Amino acid sequence: MPPTEPLPAFLARARVDIDDALERYLPKPPACPAIVSDAMRYSVFAGGKRLRPVLTLAAAEAAFRAAARLALPAACAIEMIHTYSLIHDDLPAMDNDTLRRGRPTLHVVHGDGIAILAGDGLHAEAFTLLAREPDDRGEPTLAERKLRVLQLVGEAAGPVGMVGGQAIDLQAAGQTPGPRVALDPDGLRAIHARKTGALIRAAAAAGAIMAGADAAIAAAVDRYATELGLAFQIVDDILDVEGTAADLGKTVGKDAAEAKPTYPAFFGIERSRALATECVGRANAALASVGLADSHLAAIADWVVNRKN
Amino acid sequence: MPPTEPLPAFLARARVDIDDALERYLPKPPACPAIVSDAMRYSVFAGGKRLRPVLTLAAAEAAFRAAARLALPAACAIEMIHTYSLIHDDLPAMDNDTLRRGRPTLHVVHGDGIAILAGDGLHAEAFTLLAREPDDRGEPTLAERKLRVLQLVGEAAGPVGMVGGQAIDLQAAGQTPGPRVALDPDGLRAIHARKTGALIRAAAAAGAIMAGADAAIAAAVDRYATELGLAFQIVDDILDVEGTAADLGKTVGKDAAEAKPTYPAFFGIERSRALATECVGRANAALASVGLADSHLAAIADWVVNRKN
Repeated sequence: MPPTEPLPAFLARARVDIDDALERYLPKPPACPAIVSDAMRYSVFAGGKRLRPVLTLAAAEAAFRAAARLALPAACAIEMIHTYSLIHDDLPAMDNDTLRRGRPTLHVVHGDGIAILAGDGLHAEAFTLLAREPDDRGEPTLAERKLRVLQLVGEAAGPVGMVGGQAIDLQAAGQTPGPRVALDPDGLRAIHARKTGALIRAAAAAGAIMAGADAAIAAAVDRYATELGLAFQIVDDILDVEGTAADLGKTVGKDAAEAKPTYPAFFGIERSRALATECVGRANAALASVGLADSHLAAIADWVVNRKN
Repeated sequence: MPPTEPLPAFLARARVDIDDALERYLPKPPACPAIVSDAMRYSVFAGGKRLRPVLTLAAAEAAFRAAARLALPAACAIEMIHTYSLIHDDLPAMDNDTLRRGRPTLHVVHGDGIAILAGDGLHAEAFTLLAREPDDRGEPTLAERKLRVLQLVGEAAGPVGMVGGQAIDLQAAGQTPGPRVALDPDGLRAIHARKTGALIRAAAAAGAIMAGADAAIAAAVDRYATELGLAFQIVDDILDVEGTAADLGKTVGKDAAEAKPTYPAFFGIERSRALATECVGRANAALASVGLADSHLAAIADWVVNRKN
């Protein structure tokens, strides 16, 4: 279904809806101790791009325009999981990052213990939200959709997905007991597929499922999101070389300083950029195959490869 | 429904079922990277008491004897969450424990990064399992039960429950930026209600819900589990004073060394023991009110207060 508004207007509207809903969904004192609630909000409202929840809403609208209401809880839950993963990845025991989205990382402000707990809190809260919203009483179809999304998001976030990817990344960086694991380009792609790709795919699929998309549309959206996720990560690697700390709000040049395997390190900047563009071509072909070439999803793919932060 | 076997036989059978199911449910290579799979298994199969999953199965059998099959996934999911919480709590950034169940803690063996990820992996896997099992295709009632259990376990594990309790505990131990928060006995009870009580309540409730218990039985099981959870924690505090490292498999005397608020510190050993016994009395009264005085649940309460580890 073609969109009724240009991408910037859609993004602005979606981000307001997402932020309002996150504000509503995050637990507050006195039910939630202030120290945890403050820490979770510090990271959730740090001014992220909201790529994943925007994808969820765009996929839902592409499948069925009135579906945004049904997909908003899943969009927020996935952003909570993304935020928890950033908090844990930034810890000294992992990537040891002190700057994120232009501000000190959570553990710098609240200490490692509270940062671990705020991440754990967002993680649990995400699944609670997926189980609770939208209300499915008397709507068995909706209950079934929620359970499918719960399972899919759990797998994407867990040891066969994001957590597994971060673990292999730690191994490849020599940060685990035992020998450093050497990576070739296939190994790098496999890490990315788990570490960022899995949750990006789940974000798009969750939108399609909550909207009641048929199997053909759901499969096409998944192919689209698989390519989009890889393109996103290639561009991330390029930005770590070419971007500025002011644009990115985080430390740049870190990959090269730590001799991390990246797309630019394997292929150079120019070839990496071409690879990202090829991914977007395949993503758009997947959309076109089910008549979604004009959806916001296509515009989002262009945004992702051309972004500066 | 009165049990057909004495508690030790029930416990032995339940633990075999739980361990077999955990073995089946935990993800394996190559879907799960070996480093994460090994780390998760190290902690899950460290010889814990399995109190929480045993409670889930006992509550299910008390409500409806044939229900254990329906409750086994929830039992395992709750044990995964309990194990993840131990892994994270043991980290140097939190309680800094190096011995657990008689073995070095996970971060001592695999490093802090992998320990954080193994915890995160178990956390995600628990919710994935709750969403996936038992199969509810064509069974809307079962889908509804699963969503109720998912929400309840998520709340119990999250910032309004276990995670929130651990955060207040860190504050009370002076391990967070800002002033140390002083605790009175009511504050101590509130920490326990979140930190251990919430998940113990959820464990029992999950069994009752999966078994299709009516509202009266579910409410009685919840009152029982609330009292049981407090008794469990009081006994835990007593064992930290009176137990031996050989029995407990962990460092003893740690609470007093760190001047942590505990029941024995506030009330002395004898009064603490009496308080635990009073909890069990109220727990059993709740069971008796719905005709469950002869269930394994009552025997479990006796086991919990008389345990040596």
